[in-house]
Amino acid sequence: MEKIQGGVCAAKGFRANGVHCGIRKNKSKLDLSLIVSDVRCAAACVYTQNLVKGAPILVTKKHVADGYARAVVCNSGNANTCNADGVEIAEGMCALVEQYTGVPAADVVVASTGVIGQPLSLEPIAAGMPALAAGLGEHSDEAAQGIMTTDTVEKQIAYRFVLGGKECRIGAIGKGVGMINPNMATMLIFVTTDAAVSPAMLQKALSADVQDSFNMVSVDGDTSTNDMVALLANGLAGNAEISEENEDFAAFCAALHAVTTDLCRKIAKDGEGATKLLECKVSGAADKAAARTVAKSVIKSSLFKAAMFGADANWGRVLCAVGYAGAPVDIAKVDVDFVSRAGKVSVCRGGSGIPFSEEEAKRVLSEDEIEVCIALGDGSACATAWGCDLTYDYVKINGDYRT
Amino acid sequence: MEKIQGGVCAAKGFRANGVHCGIRKNKSKLDLSLIVSDVRCAAACVYTQNLVKGAPILVTKKHVADGYARAVVCNSGNANTCNADGVEIAEGMCALVEQYTGVPAADVVVASTGVIGQPLSLEPIAAGMPALAAGLGEHSDEAAQGIMTTDTVEKQIAYRFVLGGKECRIGAIGKGVGMINPNMATMLIFVTTDAAVSPAMLQKALSADVQDSFNMVSVDGDTSTNDMVALLANGLAGNAEISEENEDFAAFCAALHAVTTDLCRKIAKDGEGATKLLECKVSGAADKAAARTVAKSVIKSSLFKAAMFGADANWGRVLCAVGYAGAPVDIAKVDVDFVSRAGKVSVCRGGSGIPFSEEEAKRVLSEDEIEVCIALGDGSACATAWGCDLTYDYVKINGDYRT
Repeated sequence: MEKIQGGVCAAKGFRANGVHCGIRKNKSKLDLSLIVSDVRCAAACVYTQNLVKGAPILVTKKHVADGYARAVVCNSGNANTCNADGVEIAEGMCALVEQYTGVPAADVVVASTGVIGQPLSLEPIAAGMPALAAGLGEHSDEAAQGIMTTDTVEKQIAYRFVLGGKECRIGAIGKGVGMINPNMATMLIFVTTDAAVSPAMLQKALSADVQDSFNMVSVDGDTSTNDMVALLANGLAGNAEISEENEDFAAFCAALHAVTTDLCRKIAKDGEGATKLLECKVSGAADKAAARTVAKSVIKSSLFKAAMFGADANWGRVLCAVGYAGAPVDIAKVDVDFVSRAGKVSVCRGGSGIPFSEEEAKRVLSEDEIEVCIALGDGSACATAWGCDLTYDYVKINGDYRT
Repeated sequence: MEKIQGGVCAAKGFRANGVHCGIRKNKSKLDLSLIVSDVRCAAACVYTQNLVKGAPILVTKKHVADGYARAVVCNSGNANTCNADGVEIAEGMCALVEQYTGVPAADVVVASTGVIGQPLSLEPIAAGMPALAAGLGEHSDEAAQGIMTTDTVEKQIAYRFVLGGKECRIGAIGKGVGMINPNMATMLIFVTTDAAVSPAMLQKALSADVQDSFNMVSVDGDTSTNDMVALLANGLAGNAEISEENEDFAAFCAALHAVTTDLCRKIAKDGEGATKLLECKVSGAADKAAARTVAKSVIKSSLFKAAMFGADANWGRVLCAVGYAGAPVDIAKVDVDFVSRAGKVSVCRGGSGIPFSEEEAKRVLSEDEIEVCIALGDGSACATAWGCDLTYDYVKINGDYRT
């Protein structure tokens, strides 16, 4: 497996593009993206668990119910959620894709991200679609930019890998700050691959993967109404179609996981206002569920996040979040270390503090990627969660988002 | 029922005091408090659900296991948690109370609040205890100050009420920012009453009350390791002892609730960095549990809290938090209004946005006490949750707490 360039256009037969169509007022911000495959793809999606679901989610669910899709259209600047005419607008976006690309509307995945509860007009989308479709090509960059809201960097990744002697590729673009995330910074992930995978196995791979990737990301504990991960596989790599849990399926899942965890790190690091990527690595858990619960609890703690912003080795906050996580943990066995490029500092052994150099800790915690490693001493299960520090800028961004 | 002065000294036979003994470096900050009843009291306590429990919690549990207590001792500046010798120190604090007041150590409720994982020395406590005990009197103010950490105002309240023709009093001091709260701002509530109530009925009253009072307060979702509510009833009012669920019990519970909800509002309003008290009032829920779940979800949302800081009527964030709360809600029936002294602005009907004046909304949300009223249209159950806005100062306070 090797990292390559190309994002969602790395896999054979996928073209993409992004334009500014006018939903966002700032003309330098792209706000409409399109990804199209030359041939129909097996499609798998996972969606937000929020009871409030954006209209695009409802339309996409209908469109991929048969397990296939061929295109993805997505706008930023408006979530098309809690609008009385939302479904009509989302369907209108798919119809425009059909009109200008020939991909049937029923094979289009549609997504929106931005403010909730503001009517979305089809006008700018209709105006932008001709140029968007005409410009389809190796433009993963533009597609990645067109789905950004408060993101500060575009997020894409691609890998090549081999299935039964055939080179396959998998790539993705993403935006947002977590599966559990701000409603105006909805997490959207679009993954393309030329591997041949049956719709059922594709969904199986995606549903399993998100448990240890996007579901382990948190920026602020708010689950969006519009989150979506869509995975399209067009089969143009020519491998024997994966239709059962064999060696090829395992290899495909590994490639998928390389793509998704890369995006998890990028999303967490670009969390709203963030200055640091935080990784919470839990080991020695009695089972996987306990490991995930503890890792997620720590990465979500406002106090831990604020302490990391201040490069303050306040490990009591880590232990506190372990204690209220809800997993059965023997606190008397818990060890905690902080790790970064600058080194490692051990702060807690067996649930009690141990002496450490505050100066050394400050040095370790002043890096922009911090691991907090928690050993529970209860078994052998592990989990990693990704998040970011809590900063003045988070408050600034969210205290005055609409105005 | 009438509000009166006196805090924990309002009820007959209770004396209190607070001193600076040296645990906190700033000599102008009191850091050790004592409350003593002239006679033994029925005692009821509730504690943090965190698996990490401060040593004082363990000692207090043992001391009130028989249903009685006579004194409360509490220090600020150090949580006495995750320390190998924590229980020994907490027991030492109780022994000092016995030495200087004559109250048996086994009748002392002990509490600590401050940083986790820093050894607590008995020395300053031993040095301060003589003056603390000698000065016991009508000093509820000093007792309230001695338990403050990041609190900016002291919190006390008292009411008088009548049971079977006898005037009774109930008063309390408190500190902190929620049952779900920062570990250095542990919530501690000490309530005293001269009503005669059996230990069993006292515990019943307290355990029921916290479900709709302190458990509905949230500042930042972090459950402390040291939270405690202690209620002492010495019976000096001379009413017939309450030992069953009769009319007197209901009257006592009403007085208790007046005291606890007053402190809930004070605690939320003084949440770390807060500029506004937020009250989330949920009505029309199918049952009480759903009402509480929804109210708590909204009051905990970082995005909602940040929007309130910015006086931004971003109601989509309210609906989003309703949607991920975990209660079965029909979003299509949900109405949302914002209310303050400046008026009321309706923003959502039947799950969709309705036109409103942004100017009017800004005026309503610029007040320092804001109600967000959510009608679910599912039934008749109600709940209220209290919280505060998320501000730059929250980040400042918690990004650099220890240093």
